[in-house]
Amino acid sequence: MRKTSVDLRSIIADGGMARIMAAHDPLSAMLVQEAGFDGIWASGFEYSAAMGLADVSLVSMAEHLTNMRNMADRTTLPIIADVDTGYGNAINVLHTVRQYETAGAAAVVIEDKMFPKVTSLVEGGRQDLVSVGEFKGKVEAAVSARKDPEFLIIARTEALIAGLGEQEALARARAYEAAGADMILIHSKQKTPDEIESFINKWDGKSPIVIVPTAYPQMTEARAKSLGKIGVLIYGNHAVRAAVTGMQQVFSQIIHDGGIQNVDNKIVPVAEIFRLQQMDDVKANEARFLR
Amino acid sequence: MRKTSVDLRSIIADGGMARIMAAHDPLSAMLVQEAGFDGIWASGFEYSAAMGLADVSLVSMAEHLTNMRNMADRTTLPIIADVDTGYGNAINVLHTVRQYETAGAAAVVIEDKMFPKVTSLVEGGRQDLVSVGEFKGKVEAAVSARKDPEFLIIARTEALIAGLGEQEALARARAYEAAGADMILIHSKQKTPDEIESFINKWDGKSPIVIVPTAYPQMTEARAKSLGKIGVLIYGNHAVRAAVTGMQQVFSQIIHDGGIQNVDNKIVPVAEIFRLQQMDDVKANEARFLR
Amino acid sequence: MRKTSVDLRSIIADGGMARIMAAHDPLSAMLVQEAGFDGIWASGFEYSAAMGLADVSLVSMAEHLTNMRNMADRTTLPIIADVDTGYGNAINVLHTVRQYETAGAAAVVIEDKMFPKVTSLVEGGRQDLVSVGEFKGKVEAAVSARKDPEFLIIARTEALIAGLGEQEALARARAYEAAGADMILIHSKQKTPDEIESFINKWDGKSPIVIVPTAYPQMTEARAKSLGKIGVLIYGNHAVRAAVTGMQQVFSQIIHDGGIQNVDNKIVPVAEIFRLQQMDDVKANEARFLR
Amino acid sequence: MRKTSVDLRSIIADGGMARIMAAHDPLSAMLVQEAGFDGIWASGFEYSAAMGLADVSLVSMAEHLTNMRNMADRTTLPIIADVDTGYGNAINVLHTVRQYETAGAAAVVIEDKMFPKVTSLVEGGRQDLVSVGEFKGKVEAAVSARKDPEFLIIARTEALIAGLGEQEALARARAYEAAGADMILIHSKQKTPDEIESFINKWDGKSPIVIVPTAYPQMTEARAKSLGKIGVLIYGNHAVRAAVTGMQQVFSQIIHDGGIQNVDNKIVPVAEIFRLQQMDDVKANEARFLR
Repeated sequence: MRKTSVDLRSIIADGGMARIMAAHDPLSAMLVQEAGFDGIWASGFEYSAAMGLADVSLVSMAEHLTNMRNMADRTTLPIIADVDTGYGNAINVLHTVRQYETAGAAAVVIEDKMFPKVTSLVEGGRQDLVSVGEFKGKVEAAVSARKDPEFLIIARTEALIAGLGEQEALARARAYEAAGADMILIHSKQKTPDEIESFINKWDGKSPIVIVPTAYPQMTEARAKSLGKIGVLIYGNHAVRAAVTGMQQVFSQIIHDGGIQNVDNKIVPVAEIFRLQQMDDVKANEARFLR
Repeated sequence: MRKTSVDLRSIIADGGMARIMAAHDPLSAMLVQEAGFDGIWASGFEYSAAMGLADVSLVSMAEHLTNMRNMADRTTLPIIADVDTGYGNAINVLHTVRQYETAGAAAVVIEDKMFPKVTSLVEGGRQDLVSVGEFKGKVEAAVSARKDPEFLIIARTEALIAGLGEQEALARARAYEAAGADMILIHSKQKTPDEIESFINKWDGKSPIVIVPTAYPQMTEARAKSLGKIGVLIYGNHAVRAAVTGMQQVFSQIIHDGGIQNVDNKIVPVAEIFRLQQMDDVKANEARFLR
Repeated sequence: MRKTSVDLRSIIADGGMARIMAAHDPLSAMLVQEAGFDGIWASGFEYSAAMGLADVSLVSMAEHLTNMRNMADRTTLPIIADVDTGYGNAINVLHTVRQYETAGAAAVVIEDKMFPKVTSLVEGGRQDLVSVGEFKGKVEAAVSARKDPEFLIIARTEALIAGLGEQEALARARAYEAAGADMILIHSKQKTPDEIESFINKWDGKSPIVIVPTAYPQMTEARAKSLGKIGVLIYGNHAVRAAVTGMQQVFSQIIHDGGIQNVDNKIVPVAEIFRLQQMDDVKANEARFLR
Repeated sequence: MRKTSVDLRSIIADGGMARIMAAHDPLSAMLVQEAGFDGIWASGFEYSAAMGLADVSLVSMAEHLTNMRNMADRTTLPIIADVDTGYGNAINVLHTVRQYETAGAAAVVIEDKMFPKVTSLVEGGRQDLVSVGEFKGKVEAAVSARKDPEFLIIARTEALIAGLGEQEALARARAYEAAGADMILIHSKQKTPDEIESFINKWDGKSPIVIVPTAYPQMTEARAKSLGKIGVLIYGNHAVRAAVTGMQQVFSQIIHDGGIQNVDNKIVPVAEIFRLQQMDDVKANEARFLR
């Protein structure tokens, strides 16, 4: 049975910290589940990358939603859906939240950037935020749109990414919590955890914090957990980076070797793909239902 | 500019052999192009796997077609589209060929299995073929449906896969060539190249042969080329196998280490994904067009 | 709240007969609901027509499913999904039933034609049926695939359409009921209700009968109800025929008149489209959430 | 063969005025073609309505684009694609223009509203425009993105709709022409043609004018043509209004009559749908290719 927001909430209620890994298609989502993570990050960055597009609001909501729905169909872990800015204003947020909840998400993360957004970690990227008031309206819209009160609305502030400073980040986080957000995602592109740790130490709200430690890999799960306020830790882009690494190496060696004779043993066999595709189930069902 | 069937044909006309790598999404197609292959295999097996589904005609034509179109949009290499059985009978083939040609494919491969098909390499898989007459009708439909006479119709016989023997395979290949196929794809699941080499040595048609040496990795490009009749060599599933290998290893280490501290240097940096997404172009265009 | 198979079942349990109207997009589904029908027929024929394609298994399952999901999203009536042959064999049926149930259908109708099918009412159309044994396997697959035991599996026999006679039709209907079908759809293209009435009078199963009185419009709801065994009456193509009629007349008059001066009062005003799109809700939500 | 922007341009170059009718799916586009119009308006309003959604940027670009591509596949008339604001900023416009041109459009209309937009004709609708400078950047982006220099970029100003007055409308139109727009669409919601006629009389640019006389049906083609500067006249929503009218009447009568006995002769027969679906072609192809 599909796990839900309730499962995510209970990990945190039990004093735990949910470890979430990014995915960009149903297969990577299935691998996230098999590896033992607590949930799947239906990442906008990873999906844009898989589509060969920059992460600047070019991918349509309908495409990302379909991909998320397909992930939900082939896994049982809770899915945290990255819906960027909500694909527009508060009216778009109403539509977006309804669609993602219906499609099987356990949570959505909505960020306070202006639509169209620019991906957070790129050097020199345009990082325009909407006003606090406008984003509070979007959080309120998200809260009012969910059908299941357990469905999680996670507000993401890009105040640190935009260089607006810790005070602004804290003020925004408090405002978004007041507007009804269940958790606060605070993002940073500093190369060390200092900025994030300082924010977390000063955080005086009740909502669990969500972090995405891409830029500061020194932030281990143990270190994050010791801060005491982090409910969810998201590995935001390691699936697509691992896949690209694997493909670049294998392609390069095949070109170099003029054949697959040397890579065949370095990659999983075709039978492993069959296992992931549940070919044994197909054969059993053929025996049962084909006449 | 997008390369086409003419480019594929000219490689072969010049005495060359086109080396084609499978892809399952636009990103993997872009990596195929960067690595130096001559074309992209819009693989049904890889796409099914990426969707988390068995390769037994569950994925819809509309989905595979959209994926192929997106690959065509973000690469310039010729794309050979794997259209399985043509998604039904000869009437479906008419529709399928028109759609894939319009979407930017350089070639389609149509196989003589019965719809719905079962993937070729799985042990003990159901392998039912349609009659020679029925498949000739499908090849004729494909030929009549293309708008550009250079668009390639590749007929794939699964006679060896189905255990029908070399004589049947040769008879089918000759019949499909007579029906208008531009090339013949001959597939084998034997663990050595013997079966394929024997077939090729006996092949007396004019059409170039296409092989997919997954099961017999000893078949290097040099060895294939020395056979003198192979026009196209397709690496049928190494993109998804490489991607899965990369993700499984990285996920497993993150779970083991309780963090990304040790994997961060083993996978490509986020900046490499930005490069693939052409973030520099985005920034240049922002400078040029945003006011 | 969305109505479900339970609501459909209860209409019949109460001695009623559900009146279902075809739709081809969310808008027509909304009009079906407003008009007072008991449910929506997510018709393959209508959807193919709306796509401009012949109803011969050219439209992909993924496309029809998405259309059905969008209908479910914007209406609350139970939806009976026309899944043709199940898009292939029993393995496809397993996948199809899971997908349509998840997407919000209350019922699926699966027919005993061979894939790819040809639409039933066309003169001189190819009408090949699968064997009784094969179709029983498909019905069993459908029953085993549903998650909610109340979800309705409706088996449709085309025996009369294929000219196989009443005995074959009855034998098939009994076999399909034995395999687990909840209802039997019996289709006829005779210009009077005689054939259908004779079948129904001889029907000795427990399952309610479903009819689609396109060819024999004399079959009013009262007459159908008086037969005592019909649980569902489907108007199979009147939405698209009404829409085409409306558009042909209006287009023709505009061309004739050289303007819209005479049609403007003969068609609903733009404000009626706004009402259907719930623009008042948008404005209320803007007032509430936009800052 | 598909007609293109060149055909549209030549109608105007020959002193004519192209009459364009809206469509919301491939079927309505086919009816537009049969009726004798010069082109198809791939309307955002009609498509939103068909999807059952308000025309406020809820429908994704990917969905509207797919619908447009399907129209292009089943018609040969030039298609003018309504791309609203370009689905975001100038970066989105680059992507949008490339996608629509590749998908077979002859022209795009981009409007100077802020994303997300609100449909133009609704009473009391929010009508926010972007600055002239920002929109000039979008027009320049559109011009730079097209591959075929004949592909038409039509700039639509909503200055009159937004109540900014004629001077602002003229200033914007001139600025957009200077930025490279090939034509100017001027929209009005006044109930008479006065506002539009005044604008056109004062228009001193070289670009042909495009109008959408929904609110002021007195503007016949003859009257529009007599103004001397109008190159394209778009009937913006009459397909969906005619379809809704047809369905509401027929549904209502069926409910009232308790059957189809009285509507069957008032709507086109099923055979007319078969004709539109080209069932005769299917049968001829079956005879030719099925064995």
